[in-house]
Amino acid sequence: MASTEIPDIVIGRLPVYLRALSVMATTGQEITSSHELGEKLGISSAQIRKDFSHFGEFGKQGTGYRISYLQDQLRRILKIDREWPVALIGIGDVGQALVRYNGFRDRGFRIALVFDTDPEKIGQPIGDLAIQDVATLPDVVREQNVQIAMIAAPAKAAQDVADLCVKGGVRAILNYAPINLAVPENVYVQYIDPVTHLQRMTYYLA
Amino acid sequence: MASTEIPDIVIGRLPVYLRALSVMATTGQEITSSHELGEKLGISSAQIRKDFSHFGEFGKQGTGYRISYLQDQLRRILKIDREWPVALIGIGDVGQALVRYNGFRDRGFRIALVFDTDPEKIGQPIGDLAIQDVATLPDVVREQNVQIAMIAAPAKAAQDVADLCVKGGVRAILNYAPINLAVPENVYVQYIDPVTHLQRMTYYLA
Repeated sequence: MASTEIPDIVIGRLPVYLRALSVMATTGQEITSSHELGEKLGISSAQIRKDFSHFGEFGKQGTGYRISYLQDQLRRILKIDREWPVALIGIGDVGQALVRYNGFRDRGFRIALVFDTDPEKIGQPIGDLAIQDVATLPDVVREQNVQIAMIAAPAKAAQDVADLCVKGGVRAILNYAPINLAVPENVYVQYIDPVTHLQRMTYYLA
Repeated sequence: MASTEIPDIVIGRLPVYLRALSVMATTGQEITSSHELGEKLGISSAQIRKDFSHFGEFGKQGTGYRISYLQDQLRRILKIDREWPVALIGIGDVGQALVRYNGFRDRGFRIALVFDTDPEKIGQPIGDLAIQDVATLPDVVREQNVQIAMIAAPAKAAQDVADLCVKGGVRAILNYAPINLAVPENVYVQYIDPVTHLQRMTYYLA
């Protein structure tokens, strides 16, 4: 995750700011401050102002931030002022939960393609989509210019699936399988593994 | 996440190291190096050695690390050389997937209690467990000394559920609901929100 001047850890905080702003916006709130945002997120207000300063001015000293403007700016920076089609691979428990999850659409993403290896699943409908054979993935994602994939396949199959994604031109992978994926340098991977999150917290427990 | 001299970001990398070591161990590999580990994880070998140096010596210069020893040390540091009982709240799609997930047990955790608010679900079995009324949560988790909770409730209910967890003495929460939780300072929260992970990657896409 190099090749930019802004530290990745700053980029990683922007979606968290955006999520908090969205919650405020749904209650009708119009203005916030780095102080209020910091309180809600457990981040210092100085850190928040420093993070924002990478991208120019988002508000005037002392008057706070206009929430809708700040949301627009963050969406533009994160390139989610559009809707990205996403390929989902692996229609087990997690995959099914992801298809039914209604939190993607308003936040920049839409599951556009679903794949599995199981002959009994291929061709079956799930939501509005038909499950396709993962062997066809490279051609299909390239044809439809899908740059993002979510891998919900078993650990054993995940690397093979990742290779197919890369072959099809996918540039960003969200991996639910509990293994680290080997991908070329220009492909971004994020991991969702509940156990690593739990293990990080037990360190602090008595 | 303060009150310790070791930066939280270092602690956050230890579970990732441990996961990579476990994959190596399953193939029968006995020795690794900071160089090999770094290659697999996309982290510099210098960073890995620096992270380990916070905890003393894990290997000798030039001979690499004995994988089983390193695993034991990391498990001890992360306090997962034992099995933590976990309370799961919200038996929807995500909750059901978590109950069926077989990746907890060997990695330090066991779902010991499941809760929901839905009268139709309360009392029903799921896996080896019976779904309990979330209203009873504070008493039950305190009685059984459960310090860890996973919240898979809808966004609207998540803060109320978190409050009940805190009331019962829970010290660590893994939150699947797409909102930030307000908790006392001595309670740790980690978030699993696929959208924030996706949004962090789109920044880098063309």
